[in-house]
Amino acid sequence: MDIVVTNGTVVTATETYEADIGIEKGKIAALGRGLGGVETIDAQGNYVFPGAIDVHTHFELPSMGTISADDFQTGSIAAACGGTTTFIDFADQGKGESLHRALEIRLERAEGKVAIDYGFHVAIGDMTDEVMNVEMAELVEQGVASFKLYMAYKGTYMVDDETLFKSLLKAKELGALIIVHAENGDLLHYLINKHVAEGKKEPIWHARSHPPEAEAEAAGRAIILAALAEAPIYIAHVSAAQALEKVKGARDKGQPVLAETCPQYLLFNTEHYKLPNFEGAKYVISPPLREKGNGELLWQGLISGDLQVVSTDHCPFNFVGQKDRGRDDFSKIPSGMPGVETRVPLLYHFGVNEGRFSINRFVELVSTNPARLFGLAPQKGTISIGSDADLVIFDPRKEVRLSVENLHMNVDYSPYEHITVRGYPVLVMQRGRVIVKDGQFVGEVGAGQFLKRRRIAI
Amino acid sequence: MDIVVTNGTVVTATETYEADIGIEKGKIAALGRGLGGVETIDAQGNYVFPGAIDVHTHFELPSMGTISADDFQTGSIAAACGGTTTFIDFADQGKGESLHRALEIRLERAEGKVAIDYGFHVAIGDMTDEVMNVEMAELVEQGVASFKLYMAYKGTYMVDDETLFKSLLKAKELGALIIVHAENGDLLHYLINKHVAEGKKEPIWHARSHPPEAEAEAAGRAIILAALAEAPIYIAHVSAAQALEKVKGARDKGQPVLAETCPQYLLFNTEHYKLPNFEGAKYVISPPLREKGNGELLWQGLISGDLQVVSTDHCPFNFVGQKDRGRDDFSKIPSGMPGVETRVPLLYHFGVNEGRFSINRFVELVSTNPARLFGLAPQKGTISIGSDADLVIFDPRKEVRLSVENLHMNVDYSPYEHITVRGYPVLVMQRGRVIVKDGQFVGEVGAGQFLKRRRIAI
Amino acid sequence: MDIVVTNGTVVTATETYEADIGIEKGKIAALGRGLGGVETIDAQGNYVFPGAIDVHTHFELPSMGTISADDFQTGSIAAACGGTTTFIDFADQGKGESLHRALEIRLERAEGKVAIDYGFHVAIGDMTDEVMNVEMAELVEQGVASFKLYMAYKGTYMVDDETLFKSLLKAKELGALIIVHAENGDLLHYLINKHVAEGKKEPIWHARSHPPEAEAEAAGRAIILAALAEAPIYIAHVSAAQALEKVKGARDKGQPVLAETCPQYLLFNTEHYKLPNFEGAKYVISPPLREKGNGELLWQGLISGDLQVVSTDHCPFNFVGQKDRGRDDFSKIPSGMPGVETRVPLLYHFGVNEGRFSINRFVELVSTNPARLFGLAPQKGTISIGSDADLVIFDPRKEVRLSVENLHMNVDYSPYEHITVRGYPVLVMQRGRVIVKDGQFVGEVGAGQFLKRRRIAI
Amino acid sequence: MDIVVTNGTVVTATETYEADIGIEKGKIAALGRGLGGVETIDAQGNYVFPGAIDVHTHFELPSMGTISADDFQTGSIAAACGGTTTFIDFADQGKGESLHRALEIRLERAEGKVAIDYGFHVAIGDMTDEVMNVEMAELVEQGVASFKLYMAYKGTYMVDDETLFKSLLKAKELGALIIVHAENGDLLHYLINKHVAEGKKEPIWHARSHPPEAEAEAAGRAIILAALAEAPIYIAHVSAAQALEKVKGARDKGQPVLAETCPQYLLFNTEHYKLPNFEGAKYVISPPLREKGNGELLWQGLISGDLQVVSTDHCPFNFVGQKDRGRDDFSKIPSGMPGVETRVPLLYHFGVNEGRFSINRFVELVSTNPARLFGLAPQKGTISIGSDADLVIFDPRKEVRLSVENLHMNVDYSPYEHITVRGYPVLVMQRGRVIVKDGQFVGEVGAGQFLKRRRIAI
Repeated sequence: MDIVVTNGTVVTATETYEADIGIEKGKIAALGRGLGGVETIDAQGNYVFPGAIDVHTHFELPSMGTISADDFQTGSIAAACGGTTTFIDFADQGKGESLHRALEIRLERAEGKVAIDYGFHVAIGDMTDEVMNVEMAELVEQGVASFKLYMAYKGTYMVDDETLFKSLLKAKELGALIIVHAENGDLLHYLINKHVAEGKKEPIWHARSHPPEAEAEAAGRAIILAALAEAPIYIAHVSAAQALEKVKGARDKGQPVLAETCPQYLLFNTEHYKLPNFEGAKYVISPPLREKGNGELLWQGLISGDLQVVSTDHCPFNFVGQKDRGRDDFSKIPSGMPGVETRVPLLYHFGVNEGRFSINRFVELVSTNPARLFGLAPQKGTISIGSDADLVIFDPRKEVRLSVENLHMNVDYSPYEHITVRGYPVLVMQRGRVIVKDGQFVGEVGAGQFLKRRRIAI
Repeated sequence: MDIVVTNGTVVTATETYEADIGIEKGKIAALGRGLGGVETIDAQGNYVFPGAIDVHTHFELPSMGTISADDFQTGSIAAACGGTTTFIDFADQGKGESLHRALEIRLERAEGKVAIDYGFHVAIGDMTDEVMNVEMAELVEQGVASFKLYMAYKGTYMVDDETLFKSLLKAKELGALIIVHAENGDLLHYLINKHVAEGKKEPIWHARSHPPEAEAEAAGRAIILAALAEAPIYIAHVSAAQALEKVKGARDKGQPVLAETCPQYLLFNTEHYKLPNFEGAKYVISPPLREKGNGELLWQGLISGDLQVVSTDHCPFNFVGQKDRGRDDFSKIPSGMPGVETRVPLLYHFGVNEGRFSINRFVELVSTNPARLFGLAPQKGTISIGSDADLVIFDPRKEVRLSVENLHMNVDYSPYEHITVRGYPVLVMQRGRVIVKDGQFVGEVGAGQFLKRRRIAI
Repeated sequence: MDIVVTNGTVVTATETYEADIGIEKGKIAALGRGLGGVETIDAQGNYVFPGAIDVHTHFELPSMGTISADDFQTGSIAAACGGTTTFIDFADQGKGESLHRALEIRLERAEGKVAIDYGFHVAIGDMTDEVMNVEMAELVEQGVASFKLYMAYKGTYMVDDETLFKSLLKAKELGALIIVHAENGDLLHYLINKHVAEGKKEPIWHARSHPPEAEAEAAGRAIILAALAEAPIYIAHVSAAQALEKVKGARDKGQPVLAETCPQYLLFNTEHYKLPNFEGAKYVISPPLREKGNGELLWQGLISGDLQVVSTDHCPFNFVGQKDRGRDDFSKIPSGMPGVETRVPLLYHFGVNEGRFSINRFVELVSTNPARLFGLAPQKGTISIGSDADLVIFDPRKEVRLSVENLHMNVDYSPYEHITVRGYPVLVMQRGRVIVKDGQFVGEVGAGQFLKRRRIAI
Repeated sequence: MDIVVTNGTVVTATETYEADIGIEKGKIAALGRGLGGVETIDAQGNYVFPGAIDVHTHFELPSMGTISADDFQTGSIAAACGGTTTFIDFADQGKGESLHRALEIRLERAEGKVAIDYGFHVAIGDMTDEVMNVEMAELVEQGVASFKLYMAYKGTYMVDDETLFKSLLKAKELGALIIVHAENGDLLHYLINKHVAEGKKEPIWHARSHPPEAEAEAAGRAIILAALAEAPIYIAHVSAAQALEKVKGARDKGQPVLAETCPQYLLFNTEHYKLPNFEGAKYVISPPLREKGNGELLWQGLISGDLQVVSTDHCPFNFVGQKDRGRDDFSKIPSGMPGVETRVPLLYHFGVNEGRFSINRFVELVSTNPARLFGLAPQKGTISIGSDADLVIFDPRKEVRLSVENLHMNVDYSPYEHITVRGYPVLVMQRGRVIVKDGQFVGEVGAGQFLKRRRIAI
């Protein structure tokens, strides 16, 4: 063996057992006890997880005249430090642009900068016949087997139901997965304009302009369209319990509806928008934080299996210089929050330490399910013979305060500033190479590989 | 390594990968490629599953003046031939009897005859203070961490809600799991008597005397009691879609409600009761077969995860000499069906071959979940380092007709006589020893071990 | 015309219109304008309702070694003063007693004392073959077309499901209505004993010994039994929103499930049990008051039509000398509350004045529906040609404080002491005779007639 | 009295009683027995209902290059013959047109031709600021308190959600009711084009291009928008049980969602589209007929109260010359069916005669509820003092075959050709004048009055 990780407690989505892990040529080659190797890494007393996968990031995203603060380099390094070894970001098609070009632009931006493995979803912004009849198939062929459609952002990215329905039909044909941003864009458009016109411009009005009903309606609509198309569908960033109810209802009937939520929706609520000194702006995201009590219902969705993935929707903007553009008008606050680095420890701390679910379920939510749903299994998302040796050695006793001072994301605040978690990655490997050690990135910038993803089989 | 199973496709509840499996002292000691061993078993082209677990059997069960046709020897050999390496049977406490005595009787009967590993659930028939305050705890200590209560069988095993509630509270305290036979015994009592009195005595009246509402009601009641007790609960042999709805409703709210169904409920329906020449009697089981269309809804429950286990409720009676005691009166037909040998191939054939779910889900349903829910994981139910080397080498191309002529169960008919499945075990190991080869039992009678089961952690 | 009520605004369950009401021989003989009569009663500026009907009272009920404080005389006078012109009380069959005898006892007690028209439901406490095969039919013939069964009170009135099911079947056959007290008696029995044994004896433990789940479970069970029997069912005193959910679910499917609630459940909550100086005992009723927020859900049930009737469950016990028997043990507090006099003004005030529903819906809830469901229509419950001239002239401006000082019920406290309602009866007629004027009973004791009720047609 | 209707059985939404009805100046002036009048009409042995109200007709509607076959004269005469004394038709605003002008056009067309009383809903087709801020209020002032919006008909009448939401907010402010045609226009647009392009052009493809999910989705969406706007909403022509489920869910939570269905959805199903000789075209309506079994679920909605109104959506086209334009392409078949004359007898026959609901509920569905919901009560919809003397004398024994030969609608076929109903109007009065006698119109063309409708109070 090239390397052996010894004495750790291996944790996968279903098993927990003591074993050494033998690695050859970047792949897991052996599981057993007393394995010998050229190099040995001692995981005594720690867990060994498969590297986590974040299927929802927005690195260097142009938005509202500015750009999200983490580029592919800072973002991917931060991800690695938090135990994430793969991310899937987005390529958004502009009007008049081809899907290929949209993807190309993002690939170019990422080129040479990415520290971990990665892929892209392509967001359809201009559904032409060419897109429908030619490009989607070509992209799936090239390893992009997931497309996103926005039901929000009227006038820009919002698609009508006919476009969504056609996309679902085509995706089914191709073995691709449709992701929706489920909020009723018409409603949001009306409410934002109304509130701004009425001078209701504080951050809390962001939430009041994005009511949970708007999310539930859109989720429900997308689910009905998917049912009719007999296609699977993936609801991004479920934030409202009412939207989760729609997911549950469909899943109870056996419909393949898949959904993610993000840590911020589990842990925060609308009270955060009322923080003094415009601090509420730090939490302006879309969909917004919801009322107290809502988060606990999302946790239940993770427990019951109705939510299968925890992603981040990582899209940070500095408080000074970016978020403050909307100081006088919530509608001008760039929407988004950092999170790519903190997802794994937060979910472990509040999920496993607090007894909400098992450590296996935790691994399933942050790694195994993302891999399976987005065509990366069995290469990613598990610890088994032949899989990539993407490993996280995780010390369940290590305490870390999630302060901006400790974190690696390129943004001037941490929404979790006062939270100290117990349990943290102490070593991260990708394809057999150590990329994070003792909290520092020790890998190689640009070593991340673009992943050709398989067709989905749900 | 003592033995290496080479070249197979290892399948667990979450993974499918090519690997050799190294076995030492009956345990899985290594996973990898090119492993060497004293003995080698070639699994080329075949799947390797963890041995299946049947948590619901009734071997040599005294019932209605007769005894179920398979004893612990014939039954456990048949189980092995069908890919099952562990079973959990029942010890039913009689009135005035202690739980210890009930268990002892069954252990004595099993002694020296059992061909595979096994355990017992203890059914509480006489809930005394001694049972409640002393015996339940002692039994859990002895490795019996699951108790069954009957909501049916008025006048004999039926318990009142207070007994059920107390049992749930105690089980929660002890880390034990309560299993219920969920049918409203009052209703059944009334309907059976009424129908017999009215001369409605054909087998179909068995079904009409056990309406689905009686099952749904009892399941719903047990679930509410469990919610109030904050205890997990396991609903045995869910047969009616209406009962499954109750399970779903509770699980959607995050309540730990667990449930099994059996192949007969997935594949058959009430039409079978109308077969000529009293053949309907072969399908007289409790709960009964349900209306057409119901089975498909149960399949959906397996797909959605609302049903976690497929067991058999194996309880065979010969058509000649046993079933025919009820030729003139359905209420005298011994209730039960064979199934311990056919479960695994049936579920593979109708579940995996017919595209209803993945092979991983199949493994989860017949092996991993039964192990986890009943305190046998990680010793049983998976293929990972340190687990018992209970393995099934399964040839997905092998076709077998499930005829009484091919099967090993000690009963004069097969309910699946005309069904030919594709996919069948070709070799079965227990703790590293080959016990079934080419469809014949080659193990040792009496080599099965009684399993001390762990407390439940759900 | 003998009498004409002039210039009032007539309100029925569907209409509101200005008209005179002409009365002859105690019946409504004409509706029109400018009617002439021997006597004239001016209702200018007031509403004229049909007399209200309270289908759930317990006058002079022996309970726990004492007797409810209102006898048939004081109770019926109080009822009249509150706008109620008809009540239906209960005759509870004791063990070994016939239904006839049970009814006879109550008829004798009522004889000569009742100030308004009345009927009885008969509660089945000992379901013998005689009861089932003979008495129920005879009672229906005699005008008692409703039977009550208790799912609570284990060891005394509690019936098993077989009895309930048989009663439903028989009632369906006879055109009678089964009323259930829906609480799981087993659960209550366990919890009461447990709490008392643990020294938890304050009034709040009454509520904690009667959890809403116990009510929801029993209601759900009764509803399933009724569905199977294809019989209508009436759920008494629905207190828990969870029980109402069961009613809704059944009604959505078209099942004839009927239900009442009472003002105390709409207006009060468990906080009342925590009042100092044992005042909580005043609110000890069965089922108990529920958590805050629950009441609003019951109001919704009245609005949506899922609850059809508001009754009182009037069963008063004096705070001094009766309620205080349980000062050291909640289980010894006689269970019940006064209410027969306050129902109509409370429902008007909190229902109509507060905009929850229309005045027509109010009339439907307190008069028309009770009449229809319990076989009194069209004689009672409306203002139409041929109906009894049971009329309430109601001044929507009159304010009355519901203090023990103003009320006529024979009990030493008013649970509504600090509530002042707007809208109150100023004159009440029964069969054309004025029985209440300016808040005082001016009728004749003993003039109330026993009402032979019709078979139910739902 | 000018006229007295004697000896009939008066039936309203809540009462059934024997009484004479005295009429003065076209209003009901007295109810009683032995009333005397200038003229007497004997209703011995018959029911007397309030005149029925059809809130959904399309007389002389321009559609797809033709015009619906009944004009205001033939249509209103036919309505009268069937027991309907009031209708509400539609004025559809075209692009660039004002609401006033749209209404004016229809009023002009109706002028002098209408045989019974009538009103209009105004359908908003071009939601300008003027419409929103000025015209809607003015129309409500003029007695048009209901507006319709189409969620179907993409490219013509279909509105986006923002328009619908604004309309709901404005309607709430004004006390007006929003009516929606709830089908997802995007889906329909896609499916119709797809099917036509694929050469699937027979009438059955009309149904397959309008799936029930499209209706359920739109109904659900409209309901969520209404909830958010806190406005009542009225769902027109509910045809799919799945849409009814959405209505139920909302009503269970107390949301004021109102809905109608039509006789064709209760009685017919998709099998009708498969009739030979293009006869299926006679049943091409929007939404379309649904699968077998669906109708019974709609009946349940009428029973449970979740549907409050039965209207007709009367919009006839001749089979020869109109329907046959679509002989080669279902999308060219003018969509609509006759029904204004047959609604009352059909609902009586299949509702009351077949025991589904009471005669009072029947009256509520065809007359009282339409009046209440659309601002016509108490002038219309009931028999009480002061109401218009719009009366139907209905002979419950009279049998009539609903053949094109017997009916008065100006269309060359009857969809109910082979149905013979028992129970039929024998005399119809409007405002005290006899307009139909012995099946023939004897009233005056042009005597119908435009009704200024009140604001809605739901």
